[in-house]
Amino acid sequence: MQRIYLDNAATTEAVEPVAEAVQQALCQTYGNPSSVHGPGADARSVVDQSRDIIARMLGVDTTEIYFTSGGTEANNLAIRGVPRLNSQCHAILSAVEHPSIYSQVEWLQQQGVSVDITPIDPSTGCVDLDAMVDQLKPTTRLIALMAVNNETGSIQPISRLAKTVRSRLSDVHIHCDAVQAFGKHPVSTREWDVDTLSISAHKIHGPKGIGALYLRRGQGLTPLASGGSQEGRIRPGTENVPGIAGFGAAARYMQEVGRDFVNRSKDLRAAFLDKIASTIDGAHPLVDPEHTVPYIIPLRISGCSSETLLHFLEREGIIVSSGSACHGKTELTHVMKALGYTSDPGVIRISLSPQTPDGALDVLVAKLQSVVGTVRQISPSTLAG
Amino acid sequence: MQRIYLDNAATTEAVEPVAEAVQQALCQTYGNPSSVHGPGADARSVVDQSRDIIARMLGVDTTEIYFTSGGTEANNLAIRGVPRLNSQCHAILSAVEHPSIYSQVEWLQQQGVSVDITPIDPSTGCVDLDAMVDQLKPTTRLIALMAVNNETGSIQPISRLAKTVRSRLSDVHIHCDAVQAFGKHPVSTREWDVDTLSISAHKIHGPKGIGALYLRRGQGLTPLASGGSQEGRIRPGTENVPGIAGFGAAARYMQEVGRDFVNRSKDLRAAFLDKIASTIDGAHPLVDPEHTVPYIIPLRISGCSSETLLHFLEREGIIVSSGSACHGKTELTHVMKALGYTSDPGVIRISLSPQTPDGALDVLVAKLQSVVGTVRQISPSTLAG
Repeated sequence: MQRIYLDNAATTEAVEPVAEAVQQALCQTYGNPSSVHGPGADARSVVDQSRDIIARMLGVDTTEIYFTSGGTEANNLAIRGVPRLNSQCHAILSAVEHPSIYSQVEWLQQQGVSVDITPIDPSTGCVDLDAMVDQLKPTTRLIALMAVNNETGSIQPISRLAKTVRSRLSDVHIHCDAVQAFGKHPVSTREWDVDTLSISAHKIHGPKGIGALYLRRGQGLTPLASGGSQEGRIRPGTENVPGIAGFGAAARYMQEVGRDFVNRSKDLRAAFLDKIASTIDGAHPLVDPEHTVPYIIPLRISGCSSETLLHFLEREGIIVSSGSACHGKTELTHVMKALGYTSDPGVIRISLSPQTPDGALDVLVAKLQSVVGTVRQISPSTLAG
Repeated sequence: MQRIYLDNAATTEAVEPVAEAVQQALCQTYGNPSSVHGPGADARSVVDQSRDIIARMLGVDTTEIYFTSGGTEANNLAIRGVPRLNSQCHAILSAVEHPSIYSQVEWLQQQGVSVDITPIDPSTGCVDLDAMVDQLKPTTRLIALMAVNNETGSIQPISRLAKTVRSRLSDVHIHCDAVQAFGKHPVSTREWDVDTLSISAHKIHGPKGIGALYLRRGQGLTPLASGGSQEGRIRPGTENVPGIAGFGAAARYMQEVGRDFVNRSKDLRAAFLDKIASTIDGAHPLVDPEHTVPYIIPLRISGCSSETLLHFLEREGIIVSSGSACHGKTELTHVMKALGYTSDPGVIRISLSPQTPDGALDVLVAKLQSVVGTVRQISPSTLAG
């Protein structure tokens, strides 16, 4: 049975150019970029090339890109690194941030920072911008709002937020987690006017273990660690040259295929949702698709346990997610809670990639038709109504 | 011209089984280990296998191994993570720790911790154990002593240190940076009686961007970051599965060849030093080879600028280091200062690996004979006498 992988928001398969770039860095340009000899310079050049590609795609300067071990580290660095966060400070996070941002509430509070969480509109999954602006205080020093939510695909109003904030306060650090956007949904770093922005390779057919942080030039940031002069002292340690090489190759790949992919996803999603509406009772998008990226499709199927449905589909060769893989648990995520659920809403997340085969969603519809009845029968009655 | 790479203490070329393991994780077991479906479980299994191999080699339990992005992160986590470090605490670090430990002095002092640095014996490069023990206070909460120094190869008395400390104080966290030892020089984690121990893949023909920390079971450690339940919440973020797979393959490789390699290195070094002594005036080991691992050979050649010598050798196809690549500068490292130098001592570091070809050191001797005269002529007169 051919497996159909539709969990690309959790992680992706490396594409051929990525695998090749990694191999080359492992076995050929294997020097230490900090070494002053030729092999060191060759490795340094690999790092520089990837940095160039990524900077160009983000529309920023190469000196503003810092490689990290992934999105989680980039997000931690962006939040914990904001200088002078103390009991005189206030921070605002959206209620649907990735766990690596959302979990900073505790850390921020330990620093004495008061934190407000901004609710979302449950019909769209988007942050309530008015509410976020209302939460602004003269002491607000940090705001985090992601570009695209990992569970719902909802596009967040980062540009409008930054515009409003900048017109009212002069010393706010705005961070944007763009992990689910980069390479697919347009990321306009300068126009968005954010101070930091995080991205990750393994969501775009690159390797796991490598990400990057954009840090606006001139902006200070306290490193999470010390020990070497790498990455402008913001992120010490021997550079992950194979990972960085693979990240560069993945970015280049998405630069080539990303726009077509998004357009194709729109068509695929529209056809899929039409078919679902006409064939499966009680199945509909979790939030209004008008407000989400087309490559993340959260589908609610009433009366079905998410995880049971996931496993039934897997037996039919289709891989989807029952929620964010980063949660690693079956309990309700904070995103589902922010949407107003108190028990399992019966959601599967279908996420596409440029590698998703034509017809994959047709197969999914057919398989859903064949399993939903059984899944409903065996699902517990405690599901969200 | 065939290049002879003798800078394996800076980093190494990935061996074939490592490259294969990385490829497989990139293109086949590419799931997210946190996902509850089959591809997730397959990736989880790759991570578990590597953890098993590494734990066995360290003689510890699999639950005591936490993957990090490298040795620098592992060292930072081990030091900064020690719970309740405050102004009531005292810490001791050796004067020759890796920059990722040595640089923690500043961070420790910011926490109010008083820090003592223990000098070394310049003739051996080994820490003065009596001096370190004399520095112990009732408030000593943290001691860091590496296993093998990266610039000199000097073997540090970690076992004797721990034994003495444990007999005097009950609540000291002892950390050992074993990055230059793992897979080569015996690491007896339990016998050494340390609380944390850090290792890295790219020093043993594994990938860059992956390392691990041993943390003694039951010992608390505060993570550097938050955001996911991965690695027992000690180290959140999607696991670097390709890196971890490659690390496991590298560890297995060293398990097979490590012992023979060290024995062969002893012979190679002995022959090399003999030839050097009889052919090049003013050339001798920087420290007593009796106290160093045989695969790191710091050679002092009086009257030669380290970096000039490095570049002349490179033109002859031989790659060595003029110091620690992690320093990334040409100024005197803190290790050279700890050895008593105030200006360039004219040291090159020759570091071997199981992949070092037979005869490599014979070629090096011949090339040294041909370049040392010229290098001496053009080196500045400000060198250490």
